[in-house]
Amino acid sequence: MQSPHWAIGVDIGGTKIAAAVVDHHGAITATQYADTPHRSTAPHVVEDVIVDAVTALLDRHLQPPGHGSVPVGVGAAGFVDADRRTVRFAPHLNWRNEPLAARLQQRLGQRVTIENDANAAAWAEYRFGAGREEPRLVLITLGTGIGGGMVFDGRLERGRHGMAAEFGHMAVVPEGHRCECGNRGCWEQYASGPALRREAVERLRAGGPRTTALAQACGGDLWLVTGAMVTELAIAGDAEAQDVLSQIGAALGRGLANVVAALDPGVIVIGGGMSQAGELLLEPAREALARHVTGRGHRPIPPLRIASLGPAAGMIGAADLARLDEEEAAKGCLEA
Amino acid sequence: MQSPHWAIGVDIGGTKIAAAVVDHHGAITATQYADTPHRSTAPHVVEDVIVDAVTALLDRHLQPPGHGSVPVGVGAAGFVDADRRTVRFAPHLNWRNEPLAARLQQRLGQRVTIENDANAAAWAEYRFGAGREEPRLVLITLGTGIGGGMVFDGRLERGRHGMAAEFGHMAVVPEGHRCECGNRGCWEQYASGPALRREAVERLRAGGPRTTALAQACGGDLWLVTGAMVTELAIAGDAEAQDVLSQIGAALGRGLANVVAALDPGVIVIGGGMSQAGELLLEPAREALARHVTGRGHRPIPPLRIASLGPAAGMIGAADLARLDEEEAAKGCLEA
Repeated sequence: MQSPHWAIGVDIGGTKIAAAVVDHHGAITATQYADTPHRSTAPHVVEDVIVDAVTALLDRHLQPPGHGSVPVGVGAAGFVDADRRTVRFAPHLNWRNEPLAARLQQRLGQRVTIENDANAAAWAEYRFGAGREEPRLVLITLGTGIGGGMVFDGRLERGRHGMAAEFGHMAVVPEGHRCECGNRGCWEQYASGPALRREAVERLRAGGPRTTALAQACGGDLWLVTGAMVTELAIAGDAEAQDVLSQIGAALGRGLANVVAALDPGVIVIGGGMSQAGELLLEPAREALARHVTGRGHRPIPPLRIASLGPAAGMIGAADLARLDEEEAAKGCLEA
Repeated sequence: MQSPHWAIGVDIGGTKIAAAVVDHHGAITATQYADTPHRSTAPHVVEDVIVDAVTALLDRHLQPPGHGSVPVGVGAAGFVDADRRTVRFAPHLNWRNEPLAARLQQRLGQRVTIENDANAAAWAEYRFGAGREEPRLVLITLGTGIGGGMVFDGRLERGRHGMAAEFGHMAVVPEGHRCECGNRGCWEQYASGPALRREAVERLRAGGPRTTALAQACGGDLWLVTGAMVTELAIAGDAEAQDVLSQIGAALGRGLANVVAALDPGVIVIGGGMSQAGELLLEPAREALARHVTGRGHRPIPPLRIASLGPAAGMIGAADLARLDEEEAAKGCLEA
């Protein structure tokens, strides 16, 4: 057994850029955070922030310098090419066909790979988290949208162009709610943060008979209601918020029935901010999945589990994939 | 290079049981057909028919006896366990948790594997057919329902329990048309034979101004309209039938947008009876796919192609998988 082989994982979020030193057991030993530059900023400014964070980790935590290679994995929301060098399109950043891996590699002097953030999180949950023992895993992240990743037979499946597992944009309602992606009726419009918000606002507008912790939380201003607000109130025990969450959980389960029909996974791991609601969300989702999955009665239904690595999953997965990628490349060189 | 390694592929259809000797290039050198026993028949009667067909092929076409092993692959509609030994549920046959592989193997004295029929067809199109050069392929078969199979990275992906790729039972319309599977709104209710039939019947009932070849074809009896009838009339040039087909093609394309969001394949191959309509079906499907796929403008859209192996794909794929399975097992023995 070799000594620990470190890697650095970077997660480019909508508001924060997080970087961590991760060992080969998926444990984080150091972190570095920075604000994500505004989406209107030039691409190189975001690169500067990433380079600063990674350099700080290399300097402080992986001394002495010249300790050898430390592969860097970068997770980003958006479409990443299958070769993991180029970001085709990032919704929260000013990146279009950005050769990010090459640029960072040149500046950092380390091998860099890019990964879709949900793919990276799926890999982390498969390797070190809630799906550890199951080689066929689907990860669904619930936040401002639905992200997805999938591991088949112990391999991360990225699709032909690196754009697989966009489950949130499977249409479930013809001519349904408008989605950011330009379509209508996407699953994420019914089962993620915006759906929580929409349902909560509609209830407040309808002005039902309940005392509304929700109305208090937003100070009566419906524009201030957020999905996260509903989740927090539900966790705190508010019945109305729990009812809203339960309804969205059912929409989650109905969409999961489609995912199960297509992929027949061994486990479904639910991550993202909304997953903090735990069983308040999973119970109605499980019920709807069992009621709607095709072939029910003739098939096992995969368990739904809450992700265990939290927001760090993206960094851990990106680091582990970068490390494995470098090992694979080294093996290829030895064999060649 | 070894001399040709033969295998036998069997396809258990709703009306016919077809068996063929297939070489390692996917070429069929002999066939044998029999009627499928009625679905109320005891399981062993179906086994008898399979054993007779395979034995006839072995006796007549693979002389002399004792030429060595001839693996047998059996394709069947329904849920086949991931270990490919047991049929959990077959919609057209009286099979529930049937240990088919073990029974046939005992009677035939040859290695037997079972495969879902659409999986087998997907494998055949990947190895020898319309998807030959593309390691990430989705097959959609359009007939009385939608069957599916998928190859990822050059491997047939069966799912955790052997039940993946049931794309036809992804729900696309909440509280939509009732499906055989017990659900409502399944994609196959909008984009396969029953959808063609339903739309044609509705048009005939509405009694529009067109001269109706359809009305003549069914002799005025709406109960006699079938999807196949619509497809045939469309191919023959009837404008109304082509219009119906075009509408169903659009529903096909909208559902394919969901498949592409989830799987990002390199090619989509369309098989089954309806695929005989060729571009009459594919053109509206392509158009709808391009208009509805998420991330359009930032991604390549996979080509849609008509399957090239026709109804023989199931036999060819089942035979090839059985042959590869045996080779794999033999390699394992040599290494052990």
